[in-house]
Amino acid sequence: MAAKDIEGFPSKDYHDPPPAPLVDAEELTQWSFYRAIIAEFIATLLFLYITVLTVIGYKSQTADPTADQCGGVGILGIAWAFGGMIFVLVYCTAGISGGHINPAVTFGLFLARKVSLVRAILYMVAQCLGAICGCGLVKAFQRAYYSKYGGGANGLNDGYSKGTGLAAEIIGTFVLVYTVFSATDPKRNARDSHVPVLAPLPIGFAVFMVHLATIPITGTGINPARSFGAAVIYNEKKAWDDQWLFWVGPFIGAAIAAFYHQYILRAGAIKALGSFRSSSAM
Amino acid sequence: MAAKDIEGFPSKDYHDPPPAPLVDAEELTQWSFYRAIIAEFIATLLFLYITVLTVIGYKSQTADPTADQCGGVGILGIAWAFGGMIFVLVYCTAGISGGHINPAVTFGLFLARKVSLVRAILYMVAQCLGAICGCGLVKAFQRAYYSKYGGGANGLNDGYSKGTGLAAEIIGTFVLVYTVFSATDPKRNARDSHVPVLAPLPIGFAVFMVHLATIPITGTGINPARSFGAAVIYNEKKAWDDQWLFWVGPFIGAAIAAFYHQYILRAGAIKALGSFRSSSAM
Amino acid sequence: MAAKDIEGFPSKDYHDPPPAPLVDAEELTQWSFYRAIIAEFIATLLFLYITVLTVIGYKSQTADPTADQCGGVGILGIAWAFGGMIFVLVYCTAGISGGHINPAVTFGLFLARKVSLVRAILYMVAQCLGAICGCGLVKAFQRAYYSKYGGGANGLNDGYSKGTGLAAEIIGTFVLVYTVFSATDPKRNARDSHVPVLAPLPIGFAVFMVHLATIPITGTGINPARSFGAAVIYNEKKAWDDQWLFWVGPFIGAAIAAFYHQYILRAGAIKALGSFRSSSAM
Amino acid sequence: MAAKDIEGFPSKDYHDPPPAPLVDAEELTQWSFYRAIIAEFIATLLFLYITVLTVIGYKSQTADPTADQCGGVGILGIAWAFGGMIFVLVYCTAGISGGHINPAVTFGLFLARKVSLVRAILYMVAQCLGAICGCGLVKAFQRAYYSKYGGGANGLNDGYSKGTGLAAEIIGTFVLVYTVFSATDPKRNARDSHVPVLAPLPIGFAVFMVHLATIPITGTGINPARSFGAAVIYNEKKAWDDQWLFWVGPFIGAAIAAFYHQYILRAGAIKALGSFRSSSAM
Repeated sequence: MAAKDIEGFPSKDYHDPPPAPLVDAEELTQWSFYRAIIAEFIATLLFLYITVLTVIGYKSQTADPTADQCGGVGILGIAWAFGGMIFVLVYCTAGISGGHINPAVTFGLFLARKVSLVRAILYMVAQCLGAICGCGLVKAFQRAYYSKYGGGANGLNDGYSKGTGLAAEIIGTFVLVYTVFSATDPKRNARDSHVPVLAPLPIGFAVFMVHLATIPITGTGINPARSFGAAVIYNEKKAWDDQWLFWVGPFIGAAIAAFYHQYILRAGAIKALGSFRSSSAM
Repeated sequence: MAAKDIEGFPSKDYHDPPPAPLVDAEELTQWSFYRAIIAEFIATLLFLYITVLTVIGYKSQTADPTADQCGGVGILGIAWAFGGMIFVLVYCTAGISGGHINPAVTFGLFLARKVSLVRAILYMVAQCLGAICGCGLVKAFQRAYYSKYGGGANGLNDGYSKGTGLAAEIIGTFVLVYTVFSATDPKRNARDSHVPVLAPLPIGFAVFMVHLATIPITGTGINPARSFGAAVIYNEKKAWDDQWLFWVGPFIGAAIAAFYHQYILRAGAIKALGSFRSSSAM
Repeated sequence: MAAKDIEGFPSKDYHDPPPAPLVDAEELTQWSFYRAIIAEFIATLLFLYITVLTVIGYKSQTADPTADQCGGVGILGIAWAFGGMIFVLVYCTAGISGGHINPAVTFGLFLARKVSLVRAILYMVAQCLGAICGCGLVKAFQRAYYSKYGGGANGLNDGYSKGTGLAAEIIGTFVLVYTVFSATDPKRNARDSHVPVLAPLPIGFAVFMVHLATIPITGTGINPARSFGAAVIYNEKKAWDDQWLFWVGPFIGAAIAAFYHQYILRAGAIKALGSFRSSSAM
Repeated sequence: MAAKDIEGFPSKDYHDPPPAPLVDAEELTQWSFYRAIIAEFIATLLFLYITVLTVIGYKSQTADPTADQCGGVGILGIAWAFGGMIFVLVYCTAGISGGHINPAVTFGLFLARKVSLVRAILYMVAQCLGAICGCGLVKAFQRAYYSKYGGGANGLNDGYSKGTGLAAEIIGTFVLVYTVFSATDPKRNARDSHVPVLAPLPIGFAVFMVHLATIPITGTGINPARSFGAAVIYNEKKAWDDQWLFWVGPFIGAAIAAFYHQYILRAGAIKALGSFRSSSAM
């Protein structure tokens, strides 16, 4: 925890990979590229299926006056469902697709030139389709309750302005994408070769934390595919009216996180690395 | 989290172990084989003991009108009990038996030819016997409440069709077995030598997540030994009528996960490995 | 998760350390020995302080009719307090004292000849003194509520027989000590050099799980120092009448876990190691 | 967990870094120094934003009589918010600033001569400014509820004396800073090269645990920046009257932890290292 200790680590060389091209013709010829898109689709489907089912199941239980009023999972349980599934799914797909499962994450990594434009667009399409299918499954399983309990759709709650909702989405996505950048930094990877395995846990916790804080404001989007999929299946005016919030906010938040990491945290790192490499002065 | 970063990892060679034979005469001569069966028996016993005791203890508390109505562990606590015990027990038994503790996991790994047929069958028998003993202990300890509060048995809740219950079990088991395959992939092991130690945490979280989502539908099986053991000890018509759901669903889910991992995710991996090994283009 | 995968690991040599002598004259001359006893004292003090304060704080809140009836941490929060503190404290003291913080763990490791008799006795004394001081702090801080809400003392709840309580303590301690043995196995250490760092998490979860399951029966002891410290400070007849349960049960459970690990799981391991070392057939 | 096992580890050499100077002229010329201060500012801002928003959101929900009285996150959820955010933020900033996010942690590490005086002072200023901004955001977003529900400010609850509150802050901060020292010990780093990556989890859990135990007493400070930022934005007499408690308590607790680690735990370590290095008798 002491800066000095960590800086004192035996400095291993690392180099940033070159920026990803906008169109990478070679990746289009590889099965691993299409496999990654399939993995993003399946992961986002499972993410929405588990989380929205938790939301609807919880509301259907507490609405029944004869049921145990305190037995439901509560907002704490819902926050765990979102954060825990991101942990599990990032863990499972990190080696296949990079484990984005979220267009805002893909956008942030595209801005930092970690993925090509073609890959970014196809990931986002796969994520949105997966989210629609995941919510569709919940609607099919919870016929009696799905529409009655809001379909897991995001929307601004009463008493909050559009500006507050937008700002909450921006900051929430910043927390998530900042954690993603911190966890996948090549410098960190060089130092701790097992980071990719450990990264999913703090990323999942970041999602958990943001849900604890902002469910009362917007229901917490910070993932445009999640908001879009729920809106498509729920398909009520309210969900569509606020939909822009859940695209504009997360994309702005991801862009700020990419800027913060690349220009504030890393720029210095690179410069300093040049002058002080031998003394590992970070 | 960026696909590129992870692809850039120094590629270590790995090779899939040869498929396990249906009958492996040599393993039958080793103490480690019988020890593994004992470990599966004990682990499944402890799993059912802790989890069903949590379920019954929670229900007995909240049913007492003089008790604190909000003090019980709730569905969130029950979901933690199932997920947390899988984390602990997979951690403890991974090096002894592979840490299955679930016939659906054993079935999935058998389909992928990771374990022999003889091992798979004996594991399943040990798991079912362990589950029966674990539930028996709970019944003995909670004489007053065990039968009154449903014995921890799985069953379709009111308002859900058999198709919904079956589908929920299929998808839930898919999430679990997909996580198991991701965590134990030999390719991943080659890259991160400590994966077997870290694997139990996401596997436990997968179980936790599925319980949050599907307790309201079926009580969540995704483990035929768990459903079978509870049915044997509870022994009411309802538990037996729905029992097939908790075998057919998990086995289908495990089969789909095995197919997805071996043919969609790995097939490409292997092909690509052939063509691009030197450029670590995985 | 597949036994075969894990067996395929590059086998590193390991050797069991020789059994600890009953009296190790050399360790008595080392500061590291006395430091370990101090660390056990402080850790058990902090353990009881945090956990019993959580128990009393929770009860005082929910007893206030004007307070939010659902805001308390509940049994789930209490279970987290016990499990989470064990995680933190085992992490902090593992390198100093081995991180026992529990006479049953010390007893189990003594039976397995991992610690000398002198060390075992002094650890237990330090743990009991630490527990008394920790509970004393809670009583001083919560003057108004400490005695009123049971002082965090263990005792058999209504409706459970002595046999059930004893059995619950035996099995609960078995789960804990079995996890401890699994996490600190020298064979595992040889294979995964970072296990000592990761071990505290499953050990903490084991404690968390057992509390979820058996708080309704005995309040959950599985740690004689914890039960003894609370009984000394609370000092009511009921806590003393049941006290024997919380020593006999945990010691039997720890002995069974030591037997299970040393004779069932490891005996085979050692024998097999002799015959198959070169083929790493473990 | 057995002291002997851990002692048996292959002993790697390590050396304590030299004590940090009070003023380190060289660090003032490095971008990495200013970047670290920015990172502390942003991390403390996000910490207060997420946690105080969780507190206010929870209170606003449970105060609404038509709302689900049990759906709020409860004290358990609030404790998770504090502990979980520390886990995420220490993970993200450990490589940049050491991940203090707390003047008491900075003070403890300064006493142990791990950071220079100049760095310590600038970190504390950045942490306090970040906390003010984080609370300011919550006030802006939760205009209707922020002041009504106490603004997340710390203060002594009814029925507890000043001495109890001070002692609770001292011990709580001791738990946190002791965990920080344990996790960042250079000896530990030498043995387990990946500790810096794993350290954030027990540190976050330490914060979680202390909140479970002492929210009923003081609301739990253990972080002067957190208490100060909330007091500045809430700005009521009560928050200012008790403010000294949340500076004096944490600084005393951090000093005791630094003393305990440097003089009790490490002094022996260093001495013993001299005499027994070759036998790795640590």
